[in-house]
This record gives sequence, structure tokens and C-alpha cells, in this order.
Amino acid sequence: MTAAALCGVWAPVLTPFRRDLSVDLPRLVNHCQRLLAEGCHGLVVFGTTSEANSLSLDEREETLTALVAAGIPSALLLPGTGNCAIPDTVRLTRRAVALGCPAVLMLPPFYFKAVGDEGLFRFYAETIERAGDPNLRVFLYHIPSVTQVGLGPALIERLRDAYGGIVVGIKDSSGDWNNTRALLEAFPDLTIFTGSEGNLLATLRGGGAGIISAAANINARAIRRLYDRWREADAEEMQAALNQIRQAIKPFPLMAALKLILSARLDDGEWNRVRPPLSEMTAGDTHALFANLASIGFPIKGLPFTGPMLD
Amino acid sequence: MTAAALCGVWAPVLTPFRRDLSVDLPRLVNHCQRLLAEGCHGLVVFGTTSEANSLSLDEREETLTALVAAGIPSALLLPGTGNCAIPDTVRLTRRAVALGCPAVLMLPPFYFKAVGDEGLFRFYAETIERAGDPNLRVFLYHIPSVTQVGLGPALIERLRDAYGGIVVGIKDSSGDWNNTRALLEAFPDLTIFTGSEGNLLATLRGGGAGIISAAANINARAIRRLYDRWREADAEEMQAALNQIRQAIKPFPLMAALKLILSARLDDGEWNRVRPPLSEMTAGDTHALFANLASIGFPIKGLPFTGPMLD
Repeated sequence: MTAAALCGVWAPVLTPFRRDLSVDLPRLVNHCQRLLAEGCHGLVVFGTTSEANSLSLDEREETLTALVAAGIPSALLLPGTGNCAIPDTVRLTRRAVALGCPAVLMLPPFYFKAVGDEGLFRFYAETIERAGDPNLRVFLYHIPSVTQVGLGPALIERLRDAYGGIVVGIKDSSGDWNNTRALLEAFPDLTIFTGSEGNLLATLRGGGAGIISAAANINARAIRRLYDRWREADAEEMQAALNQIRQAIKPFPLMAALKLILSARLDDGEWNRVRPPLSEMTAGDTHALFANLASIGFPIKGLPFTGPMLD
Repeated sequence: MTAAALCGVWAPVLTPFRRDLSVDLPRLVNHCQRLLAEGCHGLVVFGTTSEANSLSLDEREETLTALVAAGIPSALLLPGTGNCAIPDTVRLTRRAVALGCPAVLMLPPFYFKAVGDEGLFRFYAETIERAGDPNLRVFLYHIPSVTQVGLGPALIERLRDAYGGIVVGIKDSSGDWNNTRALLEAFPDLTIFTGSEGNLLATLRGGGAGIISAAANINARAIRRLYDRWREADAEEMQAALNQIRQAIKPFPLMAALKLILSARLDDGEWNRVRPPLSEMTAGDTHALFANLASIGFPIKGLPFTGPMLD
């Protein structure tokens, strides 16, 4: 698979941790395999949902290498590699390219705020130049609610013009359909993923490539079904079902809630663990989340996971 | 010097870069020596002013080691070691303690926002436990305008209670005197530095330990003079002079402006370089900054640096 062909439903993969907070590689491999079996076209490891920035550089590099060694095809891996420092970003990016990943997902540097497009352009430019690999393909990662550093159209245009064929796409996790729509209109030559399953149908209708959204960790089949059948009569219905699940989860901390649901789904308490600074769900939130999910008929216990939204 | 004795004027040291953006160690050593000669009690390397988060982990570890090897006493170095990931923070912290630094300055993890005190407490607790050194002393680094992750009084109290003798102080870079005053009142047993030279006199009057402020890079003597003579009749006048310089610089990007001023002061264009995502001052901003400084009689050309604020 080449970067130009990247499209579909990509899961930003949750990262399981052992009691000592180390990365639980067997569970991660298993989860990657399950997500592909459930219909994901590929896997975004080390994104926000993966708690990537809570992993050390060494852990990210070693885990990516180990995933490929464990048989997860590198052609199906789109790793997050963006860090605040250019050399660290270059290091992870080079490793990803060397392993055969079709592209990387690159955050802007997120420590300094209000730095301006010139500095952000130079950051990406310097990183791309230093990575220095003709096989490098970059997806820009716009998630301003977390980074507080956004990627506006002028910057995207400048990067695309300077690095055409390398800067090939955007993940828009703004959660703002108006922003996604503007990107789709302004950059028909870029591969645009929405980060919000609530915007999946609109994104596909607007010519977008697909979705990279956290809910794929627990609801991949339903998301894939909408992706496959978005031109059909019941597309709005499928979209509404996705929205319902998102709304049920929305009041709670996202990664903790998803890990709890996955833990319940797999009957595996080991999944119910996050790294600081995140915290696991409180008992009260757990009860409220499960009540929300029960109220919409979303199955939370037992295998196989066969609720109405999930075939 | 022990961490309990830390007080006075500490400079958050600017980091010089070569044309290839590598750390210019000889210039950094020279700047550290100059700051100590100008009256700084110690040096905060790898803080926000140092563009620390634009340096790789390896660079920070190697540069700290090299500074000590070059003869900068580790007892006078308070390095920033906070990263988003626990293992990376532990790594830099251990190195600092092993080198003999009296304490480290520790940012909260700053990728995720709105994580809550429980997660922040666990981050610091886990980091301290893993560093596992009885000589470790930690200053909490509160700089919410940059991190967007603040350290409130409840969290500070919990950390102090759990790690008394290890969590020994706070750098308050909120720029908000009300916050500094509240900390001084609530935590008389902690060593509290203000990060704003505008609050220096008030901080000292309130029982604070001193200051860690970017302006020390270009105005150490004047800051030190106020620190030494804050009980004297002309203290308000000295404070007003510091404020005037701060106001002259305030409209401009801080690190770029300070490097430009240092560059002019030393007649050394090599200092006028920042790492992306920061950008150097534009020609227009340079002109405006120099006009501001000229209007208050602050010397910007030539050596020695002998303006009215600087002896």
C-alpha cells in the first residue's frame, strides 16, 4: 500500500499497560489483529488515543519495531512521530520509514503556543529535510483542543507546495465540520481523514479519504459499515447510530472510557489501565457510562461483541 | 549548596545554536560563566527560556553532562527535567541528581489538558519513586500560559505532604502576583521563586526565595542589586527600572528578543538564532524593540554592557 492509497477506517490504537505501566506488547499485538479483523483498513499507533506522548521515545521506537516483528504488516501502520523537538521527531520518523510504514502522522511541536506559521513551517521543513528519505510521506495532525497549536490553511498550503508528494494528507481532529469542509474544498489533492466519527458521512460525501477515530477501538465494524455503504439509503441511520455511541461516551475522559469498555468487552481487567497524567474512570463515572451504554443497547459485557451497532 | 539553601537570582539560561541548529556548547559555557560573574546565584538550564523542549532528550542529557565537564559547578545548576512521559522525565532527573545538581525543575506533563489533580499527582509520584534517589529535590514548575496545565494549591499540598523533603519548592511563572502571594501564604515551608521580575520586590517582601526570570540573561546585575537591597529605601525605584525594561521587551517574542539583545550586546550574531517552532525577530520588530530600549536608555550595542540599569 502506498501513502497515496491510504483511505478507509484507520484505528488510533489504544495502548495497553501492565501493572508496572510498561507497554503490554502481547495485548497490543492482539488488539491490532482484532481491529484489522473487525474491518479496519489500517492502524494509527502512537496517536493521542494511544497515549503516545506518555510513552518515552525509546518505548515508541521499540514498540513499533516489535509490532512489525510480531507480524503486524508495516504497510498497515501509520505511526504518530511528532514531538516538540526536531531531532526526536526525526528519529521516530526515520524508524517508521525504515520499517516500511507508508506514512507518519506528525503533530506540530506543542510546547510553545502562538508561535506563528513561520516557525511551524520551519519545524516541519527541517524535520522532513533531516529525515531525508524519498519514501517519507507525512500526514499533518491537527488536534488543536489538545495541542493548542493549530494548523491553518495557509500553513498547510505552504507545506504542500514546498513538499508536494511528501506532505500528502491531514488528519483533522478539530471536531469542527466547518474546518474539515474547508480543508476538503481547499485541498482536493490531499488525503483528508476526519478524526470525528460524527463527521464521517459528511467527510465521505465531501471527498474525504476516511476516518481515524478513537471509537474504532470499540466500534470498528459499525464504522466500517458506514464507510462501505455511505452511498446507500440507510447511511444517515448508520451515522446516527455512531453518533449515539459517541454521545454516550462524550461526558467521560475518552481514553479511560474506551479502555474500560474494551476491558468489559474482553472481560480482561488488564486493559483498564492508563498512564499518568490520565486516570482510570472513577466508580461513579463507570456506573454512569455503563448506564448510558445500556440505555442505547450497546453491549458492554462478554464476548463476542455482538451489539446492534456492531453486527 | 543544598536544595534547602536555594535562593536568590537564578538565570533561566538561553541556549545558543549553531547554524545547523546544534547546541553551541562553547557559547553556552561562556554565557553560564558570564551570568555567574554578573551576580546570578545559579543557573536554570533547560527551562522554557532555554527552549528546552525543542532539544532532544539526548541533547539535554549530553549538554548537562558537558556543562559540568566544562567546569560549571553542578551545585549551581537547577536543570529542567519535566517531559510528557514519565520514563523520559525519570531519565533526565536521574542524570541531574547523579551529576550533583541540588534540585531539578519539573514541568507537569503538558500534552493532555484538563487531566485533573489525581493524574498529575500520580505523574509526579511515579516519577519521584522511579528516580529513587534520596538526594533528589524537586521544584514544581507552574507556567500555565505555556503548558496550559496548571499546578493548583491542592495538588501542591498533596505532593508536599507525600514527598516532604523531596518536593521542596515552586517556580511560579504564572505572572500573577495574586497566585504567588497565595503560594507564599499557603506554603511558608516551600522555597518559592517568582518567574516574573515585575513581582520580585513583592515576592521578597512576602518571604519568597528569589527569582528565576528570563530577563536575567540580559539584566542580571540590576536584578541582583534589587535582590540584595530590597529592604533599602530605593527598592521601589529599582523595581520600577526592572519593570521598564520588561515593558520594553513585552510586545515581542521573548526568547527571540532576548537572543537578539544578547547578540547586540556581545556583538555576536551567532546568538541571534532560535530553533523552530520559534522564529527570529523580524526586521520590523527588531527596529521597534531597539527603539523601545533606546527610549529608556538601555544600551544595546557594544561591550562592556554598562547601561544605567546594569551598573
